[in-house]
Amino acid sequence: MTVLFRRVALIGVGLIGGSLARGLKKQGLCASITGYGRSENELKKAVELGVIDQFASSVRDAVKNADLVVVAVPMSAFESVFSDMQGVVADDTIITDVGSAKESVIAAAKSVFGELPTGLVPGHPIAGTEKSGVEASFDSLFENRRVILTPTQVSSKNAVDLVGDMWRAVGAEVVLMAPDHHDHVLAATSHLPHVLAFSLVETLGEMHESSEIFRYAAGGFRDFTRIASSDPTMWRDICVSNKDAILTVLKKYERHLKALELAIEAQDSEAINQIFVRAKKARDENIVD
Amino acid sequence: MTVLFRRVALIGVGLIGGSLARGLKKQGLCASITGYGRSENELKKAVELGVIDQFASSVRDAVKNADLVVVAVPMSAFESVFSDMQGVVADDTIITDVGSAKESVIAAAKSVFGELPTGLVPGHPIAGTEKSGVEASFDSLFENRRVILTPTQVSSKNAVDLVGDMWRAVGAEVVLMAPDHHDHVLAATSHLPHVLAFSLVETLGEMHESSEIFRYAAGGFRDFTRIASSDPTMWRDICVSNKDAILTVLKKYERHLKALELAIEAQDSEAINQIFVRAKKARDENIVD
Repeated sequence: MTVLFRRVALIGVGLIGGSLARGLKKQGLCASITGYGRSENELKKAVELGVIDQFASSVRDAVKNADLVVVAVPMSAFESVFSDMQGVVADDTIITDVGSAKESVIAAAKSVFGELPTGLVPGHPIAGTEKSGVEASFDSLFENRRVILTPTQVSSKNAVDLVGDMWRAVGAEVVLMAPDHHDHVLAATSHLPHVLAFSLVETLGEMHESSEIFRYAAGGFRDFTRIASSDPTMWRDICVSNKDAILTVLKKYERHLKALELAIEAQDSEAINQIFVRAKKARDENIVD
Repeated sequence: MTVLFRRVALIGVGLIGGSLARGLKKQGLCASITGYGRSENELKKAVELGVIDQFASSVRDAVKNADLVVVAVPMSAFESVFSDMQGVVADDTIITDVGSAKESVIAAAKSVFGELPTGLVPGHPIAGTEKSGVEASFDSLFENRRVILTPTQVSSKNAVDLVGDMWRAVGAEVVLMAPDHHDHVLAATSHLPHVLAFSLVETLGEMHESSEIFRYAAGGFRDFTRIASSDPTMWRDICVSNKDAILTVLKKYERHLKALELAIEAQDSEAINQIFVRAKKARDENIVD
């Protein structure tokens, strides 16, 4: 494998950032990785685990002389991270990220940099677990997973190619998509399910006999609510960052749920059946377990 | 293991009924199992697979001389199954079932038998997969799973003990519960999640770019929607049979979801965060993955 980057700056060394760093190292894709994060303890742990080579005490120091900057922080931190980078990174320094909402990343970059850097290629690996933190990271997280890149109107071809090569090298399939389309698709398949799962567990948790209720939960419930164990901060930020797309699909969902509720209320077996048959068919045809 | 029953009649030879039959046979708990179901092909398959010893061509024939009758059919079929049994089973014949809604089973028995038989002990194993049919059955399905028995006011102690012994013998933990309490608890942990999952997949399936949307679904979505692959008929029947308890918890859920929606609309990070933190805490404390 060719060395793609001399000096990588990783801003945010959690599950995703850490897993990418491990993958880059395993594949020999970079000479050195400098991490930055808010918790020095986590950064020390990352060095001990061999995920990064060293850490810096500021974003500025981390990105200095880097030829690749990967931003892997919660959505609410992007604007401040971009601000800290300003003036230190060149226009053509390759900058990518792993944020779950792309229009919001681009808006943050615009508001900080004024003009979007030609080296900026926003990205989103469709991978993760309900765990978080560098200790949960592993080098094969992206194998056979899709990574969506949402180049801006000014992203250079070179930057798009390099970021794509990096993801392919750690095993991912790279797809290009318009940022707003990405946000719409992810709102449906990822953000909405998280909202529903958090909301269900919260509802049950607030019922006064909740601990008894949870005792009778079976495997289906365990699977259904696993994503409600995800990091609240990360998901709070996604909800704020991708608000419009999430609300659009959430309202659509609420209409369908209301129709089902009315069918149950009316004990309309045929209507309920049609909904369930359509759903089962859609899942069986589209999702492989 | 002692033989608990000479002649078992199994009405409905699907995933649950078939798995119980396999468990009974494996543990040597009964001398012979006669199955009945609507599809002769499925019954033949069940005999070939060794799940049942023979099958009957009517409920009447199946239950004749049985000392245990297990009803494992969709909820909507209970009344007709009970009708077919009437006059053939004695008052103290042990009758149990695996239906997901207990008040409705008891109501069906009352309406058919007039007075509830002393041998009737309604039950519900909290076990299953999203698959259905006898071919999906396996003898260890109930190991370390809970089975809730909801004896009626007239169930004899002998009947409750025997049905409990049977479930314990195939590895389950037996819990007694009032029928309405069972229905309330299960509405929360099982029926509501199924309603939500079916509704989500239906919503996405109806979006015009649905096949593209499903393509970007990750592991979280797969887990979250697995239960939407469940048998539509069975779940349609559960929704009708446990209507009141489901609607109560569904409305509670809709209120929580609406509150979350408003928080997202207002980009109220703190409110969203509180909901997600509460949910994650409730899940992490109560559910073991």
